[in-house]
Amino acid sequence: MYDMTIQLRTDAGKRLYEQIYEHIRQEIREGKLLAGERLPSTRYLAEYLQVSRSTVDCAYDQLLSEGYIEARPYRGYFVCSLEDMLDIRMEESGSVPASPRQGDEEGALREEGKAQENCSRDAEEGLWQSVCGRKGRADCLYDFSPNGIDMSAFPFGVWKRITRDILNDANGELLSQGEPQGDYDLRLTISRYLHSSRGVNCSPEQILVGAGNDYLLMLLEKLLGKGKRIVMENPTYKRAYRIFHSFDYEIVTVDTDAGGMLVSGLQETRADAVYVMPSHQFPTGAVMPIGRRTELLRWANQVPDRYVIEDDYDSEFRYRGKPIPSLQASDQGGRVIYIGTFSKAIAPAIRVSYMVLPQELLERYLRCCFFYSCTVSRIDQRILNEFIGRGYFERHLNKMRKRYHAKHDLLLECLKPFETAFSLSGEDAGLHILLRARGNATEEELLGAAAKRGVKVYGLSESLVKTPGSEHGTVLLGFGALNEREIEAGAALLQEAWL
Amino acid sequence: MYDMTIQLRTDAGKRLYEQIYEHIRQEIREGKLLAGERLPSTRYLAEYLQVSRSTVDCAYDQLLSEGYIEARPYRGYFVCSLEDMLDIRMEESGSVPASPRQGDEEGALREEGKAQENCSRDAEEGLWQSVCGRKGRADCLYDFSPNGIDMSAFPFGVWKRITRDILNDANGELLSQGEPQGDYDLRLTISRYLHSSRGVNCSPEQILVGAGNDYLLMLLEKLLGKGKRIVMENPTYKRAYRIFHSFDYEIVTVDTDAGGMLVSGLQETRADAVYVMPSHQFPTGAVMPIGRRTELLRWANQVPDRYVIEDDYDSEFRYRGKPIPSLQASDQGGRVIYIGTFSKAIAPAIRVSYMVLPQELLERYLRCCFFYSCTVSRIDQRILNEFIGRGYFERHLNKMRKRYHAKHDLLLECLKPFETAFSLSGEDAGLHILLRARGNATEEELLGAAAKRGVKVYGLSESLVKTPGSEHGTVLLGFGALNEREIEAGAALLQEAWL
Repeated sequence: MYDMTIQLRTDAGKRLYEQIYEHIRQEIREGKLLAGERLPSTRYLAEYLQVSRSTVDCAYDQLLSEGYIEARPYRGYFVCSLEDMLDIRMEESGSVPASPRQGDEEGALREEGKAQENCSRDAEEGLWQSVCGRKGRADCLYDFSPNGIDMSAFPFGVWKRITRDILNDANGELLSQGEPQGDYDLRLTISRYLHSSRGVNCSPEQILVGAGNDYLLMLLEKLLGKGKRIVMENPTYKRAYRIFHSFDYEIVTVDTDAGGMLVSGLQETRADAVYVMPSHQFPTGAVMPIGRRTELLRWANQVPDRYVIEDDYDSEFRYRGKPIPSLQASDQGGRVIYIGTFSKAIAPAIRVSYMVLPQELLERYLRCCFFYSCTVSRIDQRILNEFIGRGYFERHLNKMRKRYHAKHDLLLECLKPFETAFSLSGEDAGLHILLRARGNATEEELLGAAAKRGVKVYGLSESLVKTPGSEHGTVLLGFGALNEREIEAGAALLQEAWL
Repeated sequence: MYDMTIQLRTDAGKRLYEQIYEHIRQEIREGKLLAGERLPSTRYLAEYLQVSRSTVDCAYDQLLSEGYIEARPYRGYFVCSLEDMLDIRMEESGSVPASPRQGDEEGALREEGKAQENCSRDAEEGLWQSVCGRKGRADCLYDFSPNGIDMSAFPFGVWKRITRDILNDANGELLSQGEPQGDYDLRLTISRYLHSSRGVNCSPEQILVGAGNDYLLMLLEKLLGKGKRIVMENPTYKRAYRIFHSFDYEIVTVDTDAGGMLVSGLQETRADAVYVMPSHQFPTGAVMPIGRRTELLRWANQVPDRYVIEDDYDSEFRYRGKPIPSLQASDQGGRVIYIGTFSKAIAPAIRVSYMVLPQELLERYLRCCFFYSCTVSRIDQRILNEFIGRGYFERHLNKMRKRYHAKHDLLLECLKPFETAFSLSGEDAGLHILLRARGNATEEELLGAAAKRGVKVYGLSESLVKTPGSEHGTVLLGFGALNEREIEAGAALLQEAWL
């Protein structure tokens, strides 16, 4: 076992667990810790470093989440195999965003895939609605929608004050059309936020501001071109699936497991692009480990004009450890298109999303799509920019993270009686968790029994592109829009229904 | 000459000229006035009806604008040939909007066109920017941008008050995503406004609210499908041209004259759709006469799945006579897609446009595109709805119409000295007029001479898809964003430059 000498500093502005996590990560990256090597037990390391055991637990959890280490039952923690790793760097928060040129050199490895997977396009007609509040609740007592978010804490007062200030200072310029990519000030603010919170390396010039992810994907279609073949995770975010389907893109799916997309399945797809949610897969909640991320980026670099669309839709809400770094942070070849939104973190009504283009696509945008005018009003852009710039966004995020954390913990507590009959996954992040029947109960049976008691839960199959026909029904329980009383009451009814 | 017996009523709630206009239009429609028949002179009719001559002038102007009659030099006014006319009806303002089902029966005449026109796609790289205010003005003294609008009169106070009221009353619902087509209340308000002001027959169900025309056209692409052939006027609105080009649509152009698109040229195009601005063509300012409108609709009805995209971008601003009715008002076959915007009438920053779908496309939308979320925030939709509903929009429009009218008249006055060297067109509506050199001055020379004196004017060629290589330079002079002093000073400099 390797000698763990870590210089812990209490004045470093970093918490102890972060220092431990970063030290071990660094050792792994530099090859000082080799694949297969066993880490000291948490108890041993805690004693050695004179810190609490939970501090070491936190550090190991983070390394686990990001795929640097793995836990083997009864044996301990071992370093994962990363021999194919690209030079993964997570920029330190607070430093200057990199110039867009940085990602310009691409490994132009060409390799043609071998097989061609045909995709079964399901022609679902059913309405898959984002249910927040009223609509969903009207026909049931408790709606565990995975898309529900808590809007009771929206800072109306602040929003109103900022709006008033902006309209007071306004002149004709504010009413004019503005830059197609979005106001520079807002893009600068977003680039700084993404850098410090998600490790995204970009300049404001690379950012497109748009009214929702759907619109940004439509714009992306103009950049990628027609008739492309795109890989999606199965299950995946069905709205995105429908959008790519409406582009007439050929959609190929690759299955997922606890580490997200089974990236090894990409080779034979010969696809032009892949749509992934590596930091928090919807709906499984999986975090893609570092090894797969590396493999994914390598695949993207194999042929020119192949891209990874990273949808980082709710990375703000993580209740354990540090946020998982974005895939874009590791992208050296300019292959990652990063998409994010303020819909979850503030409110869907805000209608502001952003897309970070790698250099090549940015040039294509400036050449071919410069004339599409920005879909977000300048007044709204200015309000959002002030909201972030004056520190309200961070405060709001912290508040929401606490609220959601409390609801998350409460729901887990309420679900304890379910543990013998169900396995639980997707916890520790996001706004929903998954329950999978250990027995033969089908999804339909579970949904039906819940509905009879006035509880709406959501089936995993709604997110499936290809149905694998699992006999174990799996349901999603979203907790964002419910308050504590509703979570308890809803869970009690589910207990009646299922146990 | 036909006997003109008109029952004029002073208590009819309609102005005298409107009653005369409507009477004659009715006579023409009912065949009581036949093609080629001569109308009484304005002096004669004025004496006969005991009204002022200007009243009759107004009525005749309106009939002229709409193509019911034509003026022959030294001979008088004659009824136009309308034998192919469909049943054109302009609904009376204030009545209930028709159900969407009304336009359901389509004349399924099929006729294949004969020739196939190839389109020369210009690969312009230049940035064709919408210049409002600052940007354009920075590099010149006076910017006669045809896209400039007057934002000094924007009712910030009212806007602020409405915003405050809405945020005061707000709850979680306002922050949720809302309906994909836009909030029903706003769609109802828009449908009423369109009906009373533009004769558009539609229910709220047919309306899609979106963040700008560009986005709505992107959505329309999903409804029309890929690889379509579309006809545009030449010259046309270049942004729309660029957008269709980015769809990889084959673009065929048809020339224009004083009556807008030369609709007879459509037959041989065998196109799937046509994009027109019949009420006020950009940039020529032409109004499409009734005969051509009829021919256009007949062409659209010849084969299934053929559509007319009517861009009614600035119909609010007409300084003479009544507004020209929309083409959609005459559409009995469900062939017209009507697009309008609040960008001109309120401000580009508002970012709210709307698209009225005919029944068949609406069904396609509900089947294939229901999942695209609305691009306008609910807060903004609510503000706009209140702004219109509380009567502020109408007041604002009236104010702006007066302002623009005054600027329009002033500019015409300032351009009087130009009359020997230039012919003027595109007056009486919109926010710009055109000057065409009678001599051999090229557009480049005119722009260059103006620029030397610090005046920015815009060449017609910017709007041309196919350059006909005219020797007579034509420039656009927009007056929207300039104040009276600037118009006078700018025109004086142009006089130095060109005369």
